[in-house]
Amino acid sequence: MSKIKLLLTYDGTDFHGWQRQPGVATVQGALEHVLTQIYSEPIRIVGSGRTDAGTHAVGQVAHFVPPKQILREERLVTALNALLPESIAVRAAWHAPEDFHSLFSAKRKTYLYRIWNHPIRSPLWAHRALWVPKPLDLKFLNLLSRGILGRKDFKSFQTSGTPVKSTVRLVDVCNWEVKHRHLVEFRIRGNGFLKQMVRNLVGTLLHLERHRGAAGAHLGELEHIFAAKDRQVAKTTVAAHGLYLYQVEYPRALDKRCRKL
Amino acid sequence: MSKIKLLLTYDGTDFHGWQRQPGVATVQGALEHVLTQIYSEPIRIVGSGRTDAGTHAVGQVAHFVPPKQILREERLVTALNALLPESIAVRAAWHAPEDFHSLFSAKRKTYLYRIWNHPIRSPLWAHRALWVPKPLDLKFLNLLSRGILGRKDFKSFQTSGTPVKSTVRLVDVCNWEVKHRHLVEFRIRGNGFLKQMVRNLVGTLLHLERHRGAAGAHLGELEHIFAAKDRQVAKTTVAAHGLYLYQVEYPRALDKRCRKL
Repeated sequence: MSKIKLLLTYDGTDFHGWQRQPGVATVQGALEHVLTQIYSEPIRIVGSGRTDAGTHAVGQVAHFVPPKQILREERLVTALNALLPESIAVRAAWHAPEDFHSLFSAKRKTYLYRIWNHPIRSPLWAHRALWVPKPLDLKFLNLLSRGILGRKDFKSFQTSGTPVKSTVRLVDVCNWEVKHRHLVEFRIRGNGFLKQMVRNLVGTLLHLERHRGAAGAHLGELEHIFAAKDRQVAKTTVAAHGLYLYQVEYPRALDKRCRKL
Repeated sequence: MSKIKLLLTYDGTDFHGWQRQPGVATVQGALEHVLTQIYSEPIRIVGSGRTDAGTHAVGQVAHFVPPKQILREERLVTALNALLPESIAVRAAWHAPEDFHSLFSAKRKTYLYRIWNHPIRSPLWAHRALWVPKPLDLKFLNLLSRGILGRKDFKSFQTSGTPVKSTVRLVDVCNWEVKHRHLVEFRIRGNGFLKQMVRNLVGTLLHLERHRGAAGAHLGELEHIFAAKDRQVAKTTVAAHGLYLYQVEYPRALDKRCRKL
């Protein structure tokens, strides 16, 4: 039996993150609960990675192994969306081959970090963006962010947790732009991300921006932080509620072997 | 002592509407509670109008009469925003003249109604926009909406409540546009609005769009609904959570006599 691949959007506000935990609401837990209802036997799903409590997803990907063929499988997405809480939706589902794995097959991820950049906090962005009252110098932030591009050791930006073999990652997109009015968006794309790496990078960039003098000096400081390979040397982190897992990409050859339900 | 005018933004999701009610969270109640703390005596505020439970505001206006001059009045906005729940923010405050009245002086209001127009519901717009799965014909809706413009009797679009002297209102802006991706926005501006008038208008327009044939026939049907002056003849209403009170305008001469705190 092949696997089923799901594309998911969720508002992370009311969840204790992605990962299943006994006694608290998590995204994985909610999905497994509903899938178990649909298939009438316990289902476990595997996500492309965890998201922290409060972090949102526009395009999280997960897979599971269906224990049996259910009738009218083409209605699985409709059934899931009818049963899931309104804070989670399934955007699409595919039959995926045996060798597809939402975590191990992922070749690239994109995250967004949103900032409400205005002297007055915004109730409409309260759980959706970090509030930064002072005007951000986007030109400076973009200049700094170039220092993140490339294949680098991100050890200094890793929050300790499950040990990983290598802390080297390739980042090929990293920029800041004004989305609309006072909403600033940081976008980063890479072949993988360490624990809280995006939040640690944004925290460090915002710290350097806040204490900015000559841009050159700060480029040097960022290099110094990379070179230290020590989380203690990196600056502060930022809140989880500004972060969105935007997209997870898989090899095209693998995508081609998936077919929509 | 002059009045103080406040410009407010709020996320209406967790409130039972604007109007103070014993035992439940309301926007007016939360503001009065915090102002009473600040002034150490009971404060009552007057809004430019009520908003329904779940309805949001980008630019609600309210006023109150300060019982005394407080020290460092220029810090009132900061103090209010520090004490208010994160779902309400004060964007600005002014000293307003005695003859300013947030409700009676208002000359024009603008409302937005947002729709998530996609086959799959959006968790990120769950409490912020109405979900309409089928693609909307905006050209048709804009054609229909022209029939709302002008000085008209909106009695058919009034939900019964406090009696009003006249049900005639002047609407000078009424249109639909795609804001970004799948978000559709209806904008309406008028010299005043009856109870649930925007929700009843949007409900009727969406009903006519859903059952559209020739546009001409439906323009006739809209005229018929106006002519009936009967709420029973109008079509359905729409949910409160897509509605935003966007702006309240006052005569320029009055604005000029207000000064920022």
